[in-house]
Amino acid sequence: MSTPFHDPDVDWVFGIHGVRALLDTPDQVRRLLVAEGRRSREVEALVRSARDAGVRVERTPKRALDRQVQRATSRDGTPSEEGSTNHQGIAAERHAFAPASERELENRWPSFADPLIVVLDGIKDPRNLGACLRTAEAAGAAAVLLPRRGSAPLSSTTAKAASGAMERLFIVEVANLARRLQWLRDQGVWLTGGISDDSGVAHTGVDYRGSCAIIVGGEARGLRRLTREHCDHLVRIPMAGATQSLNVSVALGVLLFEARRQRALSIGTG
Amino acid sequence: MSTPFHDPDVDWVFGIHGVRALLDTPDQVRRLLVAEGRRSREVEALVRSARDAGVRVERTPKRALDRQVQRATSRDGTPSEEGSTNHQGIAAERHAFAPASERELENRWPSFADPLIVVLDGIKDPRNLGACLRTAEAAGAAAVLLPRRGSAPLSSTTAKAASGAMERLFIVEVANLARRLQWLRDQGVWLTGGISDDSGVAHTGVDYRGSCAIIVGGEARGLRRLTREHCDHLVRIPMAGATQSLNVSVALGVLLFEARRQRALSIGTG
Repeated sequence: MSTPFHDPDVDWVFGIHGVRALLDTPDQVRRLLVAEGRRSREVEALVRSARDAGVRVERTPKRALDRQVQRATSRDGTPSEEGSTNHQGIAAERHAFAPASERELENRWPSFADPLIVVLDGIKDPRNLGACLRTAEAAGAAAVLLPRRGSAPLSSTTAKAASGAMERLFIVEVANLARRLQWLRDQGVWLTGGISDDSGVAHTGVDYRGSCAIIVGGEARGLRRLTREHCDHLVRIPMAGATQSLNVSVALGVLLFEARRQRALSIGTG
Repeated sequence: MSTPFHDPDVDWVFGIHGVRALLDTPDQVRRLLVAEGRRSREVEALVRSARDAGVRVERTPKRALDRQVQRATSRDGTPSEEGSTNHQGIAAERHAFAPASERELENRWPSFADPLIVVLDGIKDPRNLGACLRTAEAAGAAAVLLPRRGSAPLSSTTAKAASGAMERLFIVEVANLARRLQWLRDQGVWLTGGISDDSGVAHTGVDYRGSCAIIVGGEARGLRRLTREHCDHLVRIPMAGATQSLNVSVALGVLLFEARRQRALSIGTG
């Protein structure tokens, strides 16, 4: 009698049957939510197979799961349909498409010549994440790195804001961002982090030619401490008004197209 | 027995009493919607006083008004409350705050020295409009010009995305944008329009020092024909990927901070 909600346009799958089918392609699964309390044998089996596939599993109060169903199934103010709220104590959040693995990044690395890399350190809002991806693709980023935790999912909302860029980009989901930044440095990449406080130099005062990565942080907190510590340069976009910071996708655009300007000049002068 | 919906956080006012109160400050009213068909004497009186105050009046099918009520009163997927759908055939869309008039722009103009002006030619999405305002304020825009028709309203959604910039900026609502652009040229302002097709020169190839205006168009159509014809320069941000255009607030940020870079150099060299 269960009606697992499984619509290709949405980013949540509810109920045992839907989650089981999704776990056939575990790269697509961002995380599993399991209701606290007593679990059925079927849910237990799904949790085990998720863990075996390296998928994150989180416990959550049943009411949080009810609300998640409610939110995922209501659109444009219309209430959810009856029947779709039967999550059976399990739900999976999925990516609209599967990002690449860190191993794929390492395999592909030798083919990059002086790449421009974008690192998005915890963008929480899917529309902002999509706008960042659109901007990164337009600026010719060879790869975009995202931490596995603390980012908005690569959902259909993100895809829409990205206007096709999400599917075209080489997007890599990273387990430990600080370690991966160190790896980038070991490959000769210069790391420039965008910040909005006074400790940064003007963004136009840094050399972006050669292999370089531009790193922006989440909407509220900016770059995390460990991320900052790995940067070669911390830059600030000089503000002329009372506004203290730009929208993260706007800031990323300003930094990336300053980098492009310098890189074009460098080609122009040989 | 009517329950006019009048919440300070929303941008629509429904019903005779609410609209009458709002018309005491007609600068706040963006437009009046009146249901087609037979009108009560009270509605007729409100339409007359709106017209006298220079407020735009639009006729609309009653069902469109019903839907507008529905949309304005539903939040986060919760259906609207009963009672609030009684619009009595009249609704007003209002600005969260009142923009300045063209006369105020003319009065204030002599106090501007080499101003950087931003013109937003029909941004439809309130979040994009807000991000554009935030970016304009951060870049030190002396004024932002918006056409009266075809823009998203200066609503609470716009204000939120602008992070305080909407209230701090000098925002001017313009009746005839082409005529006002000609006026700007007559004041010695150089007009640079951002476009995404190949007819533009690279945005870094234009001189943005002195009095200048940067103009970006709406999300779908870009600059309108008459707007393009008034520009001194049409510029394009060179794209390195397959993406054809940036989000409008990102494009505006790239153009404005290229202008700031040049203007800072110009100060730096005396």
